[in-house]
Amino acid sequence: MNIGSLIFPKMDQADFTVPFEVLSRIPNATVHVLWKDKAPVTDVNGLVLTPTTSLEECPALDVLHVPGGIGQEALMEDETVLRFVGERAVHAQFVLSVCTGALICGAAGLLKGRRATTHWAAFELLPFFGATAVKERYVVDGKLITTAGVTAGMDGALHLAAVMCGEKVAQEIQLEIEYAPAPPFESGTPETAPSDVLATVREGYRKLVARRRVTAERVAKRIGVEVRGLPT
Amino acid sequence: MNIGSLIFPKMDQADFTVPFEVLSRIPNATVHVLWKDKAPVTDVNGLVLTPTTSLEECPALDVLHVPGGIGQEALMEDETVLRFVGERAVHAQFVLSVCTGALICGAAGLLKGRRATTHWAAFELLPFFGATAVKERYVVDGKLITTAGVTAGMDGALHLAAVMCGEKVAQEIQLEIEYAPAPPFESGTPETAPSDVLATVREGYRKLVARRRVTAERVAKRIGVEVRGLPT
Repeated sequence: MNIGSLIFPKMDQADFTVPFEVLSRIPNATVHVLWKDKAPVTDVNGLVLTPTTSLEECPALDVLHVPGGIGQEALMEDETVLRFVGERAVHAQFVLSVCTGALICGAAGLLKGRRATTHWAAFELLPFFGATAVKERYVVDGKLITTAGVTAGMDGALHLAAVMCGEKVAQEIQLEIEYAPAPPFESGTPETAPSDVLATVREGYRKLVARRRVTAERVAKRIGVEVRGLPT
Repeated sequence: MNIGSLIFPKMDQADFTVPFEVLSRIPNATVHVLWKDKAPVTDVNGLVLTPTTSLEECPALDVLHVPGGIGQEALMEDETVLRFVGERAVHAQFVLSVCTGALICGAAGLLKGRRATTHWAAFELLPFFGATAVKERYVVDGKLITTAGVTAGMDGALHLAAVMCGEKVAQEIQLEIEYAPAPPFESGTPETAPSDVLATVREGYRKLVARRRVTAERVAKRIGVEVRGLPT
């Protein structure tokens, strides 16, 4: 089984490494770490990640995994990446997007007419890609599995492992990695975070959110999606 | 603030990358990715990780972070690593071990007289390092924070962020990474996993557990810990 995880500069490393922890434990699976070439890339917080396989060399994929993070913006109109994602998605059994990896999938046209989710701060952009936005930890629509922000990749990847190999295999992996989470705070979503915490994080995201909106509007035109009734 | 995360061959990448996601977001923190030299190392499931800093070059650390994974066995009697861990722990404000990183800390003498935890499959070895084994997601004893297996590094790292920078900062990070976990199964601990799942995983670990036990007995002698009443 061939699994391909896209990496790219200024990605969020955990959007990749958290699902990798599950996907790489699937029996007989090979995870190809994919980028345009095989030179290392640096994630948004400075972690150096090294591709194993270039997009050109990449074999046929059973699973295409598309992480997100701030660097996603630079890929939204990148012909090479969008063509790769669009073409590989056709033949893959499953496409797993994590966090704002959903926006890359959207720019490649994969979200049209689909139910989907993404990081909460990008959630309202989903209609620009023709998607119905669904507030769930991960959303399954046919071969497409989209997850919420960063750490949701764990839940989505375990679901994917179960669908591909059966629940027992997914449960074995969960036990191996002792995934019995116990967050010390309840601040993981805008709905549960203290209001001052939410305000600070929203303010930190303000410019990024505005830039993403402009890009999303441009992408919507390109892929022929008309959006009505959104807040401006 | 200088944070040092040890990486090594055949480690479990998520023991490092999951806490990295939190630690690298701490304001004014630099995370040094540490190994003997700066050549890339490969994790137990094939992920290539690149050090930023050699042990020799490493500046004074506020936080020492010690991941685990199968490669931990090879470090249990590695003079260079144990001396580094032991010396840096003296001056660090906090030591965070994840998964079987606790055994490395134990071999460096850091667990003597401490309450500690580790991956469930290594839990019964803690007394060999002079520790009182405590079944919690993460255990705090003075400057030492030990966590359970792999994914518990997230909970321990968020606790650490709160202790160092205040709860608000930790909660902001939690919101940014949307850490509101929703595991699709309840198989994350031996107590909750289905019995056939537990049996399969235990069998997979059998040889590793036996090897670790022999090493732990040897380490216990070296560091002067006498263990009585353990199952043989």
